[in-house]
Amino acid sequence: MKKFEEKTLTSETIYQGKIIDLQIDEVELPNGKTSKRELIKHPGAVAVIALTPEGRIVMVEQYRKALEKSIVEIPAGKLEPGEEPVKTAARELEEETGYGCENLRHLISFYTSPGFADELVHLYIAENIARIEDARGPDEDEFVDLIEVTVEEALNLIKEKKIYDAKTAYAVQYLQLQQFYK
Amino acid sequence: MKKFEEKTLTSETIYQGKIIDLQIDEVELPNGKTSKRELIKHPGAVAVIALTPEGRIVMVEQYRKALEKSIVEIPAGKLEPGEEPVKTAARELEEETGYGCENLRHLISFYTSPGFADELVHLYIAENIARIEDARGPDEDEFVDLIEVTVEEALNLIKEKKIYDAKTAYAVQYLQLQQFYK
Repeated sequence: MKKFEEKTLTSETIYQGKIIDLQIDEVELPNGKTSKRELIKHPGAVAVIALTPEGRIVMVEQYRKALEKSIVEIPAGKLEPGEEPVKTAARELEEETGYGCENLRHLISFYTSPGFADELVHLYIAENIARIEDARGPDEDEFVDLIEVTVEEALNLIKEKKIYDAKTAYAVQYLQLQQFYK
Repeated sequence: MKKFEEKTLTSETIYQGKIIDLQIDEVELPNGKTSKRELIKHPGAVAVIALTPEGRIVMVEQYRKALEKSIVEIPAGKLEPGEEPVKTAARELEEETGYGCENLRHLISFYTSPGFADELVHLYIAENIARIEDARGPDEDEFVDLIEVTVEEALNLIKEKKIYDAKTAYAVQYLQLQQFYK
């Protein structure tokens, strides 16, 4: 859909980083006037609902410098160039949790902050996960702790404001409503 | 929580914009090594589940330059300096939809992209909304179309991949599960 399209008049890349780029576009609005748009370009990411054979969701606690605190999230990570999202999902699951899964299934994808960023998160489900011997560990600048909770416990953590990461809450709610989505 | 805290060694603001700032921090990791973090500073935002007396959710279709397309979202907007979030919510609801509500209630708040941004979205519910005569219109660089759907229709739009904005899907799922959250 291109309704209310904003035509690009100029586009300037201010910063090219390891994960994000910052781009400033001058646009022509539908009424002919002009405006500026501050845009973050992101390679996209995956997130994984990983379920143990007992139906517990595996989550990771990690420090997020952007927030200056550690929070609880489902395993996730950014796409690497040329890597298929399902491969990224399997890799991130192994590296962050030590678990593997024979069959990762794509559930849904969503934009996290369309007002300023193009980050698209692909959500996967990994059922009947099992420990991988000699699993690859997390990236060298990544430190995580594992937590395993039931769906009901996870919903309570959202309600009690202990989970406040959008993709994690989205995933837990999706799981609770999965009969509807089938 | 400060588990796995990353201590700031240096912090440089690369860009200060109208909506976002870009900041690069050099950090000391828990193992003593150093790394770089690319961080987007955002003032925070509100989003509103606006329900007509018939129980229909009001959504807006608008062009998102970051995505180069128009998408369907619930009304939302960034916080202005010194403005209470509940006031921002009422203002954005009026400006984007022409609707008002006597009693906006805070439901929950969530981080949209904690991997690189500190944006926190405060989700409000506005029940029994009514048309405001001579409502303030949207910002001069904002163009929106209104859509009104039932909760079930909204869930179907998620399932059919016609709603893929995270905060909107989060809000619809929250509404569907609200008996649980009460």
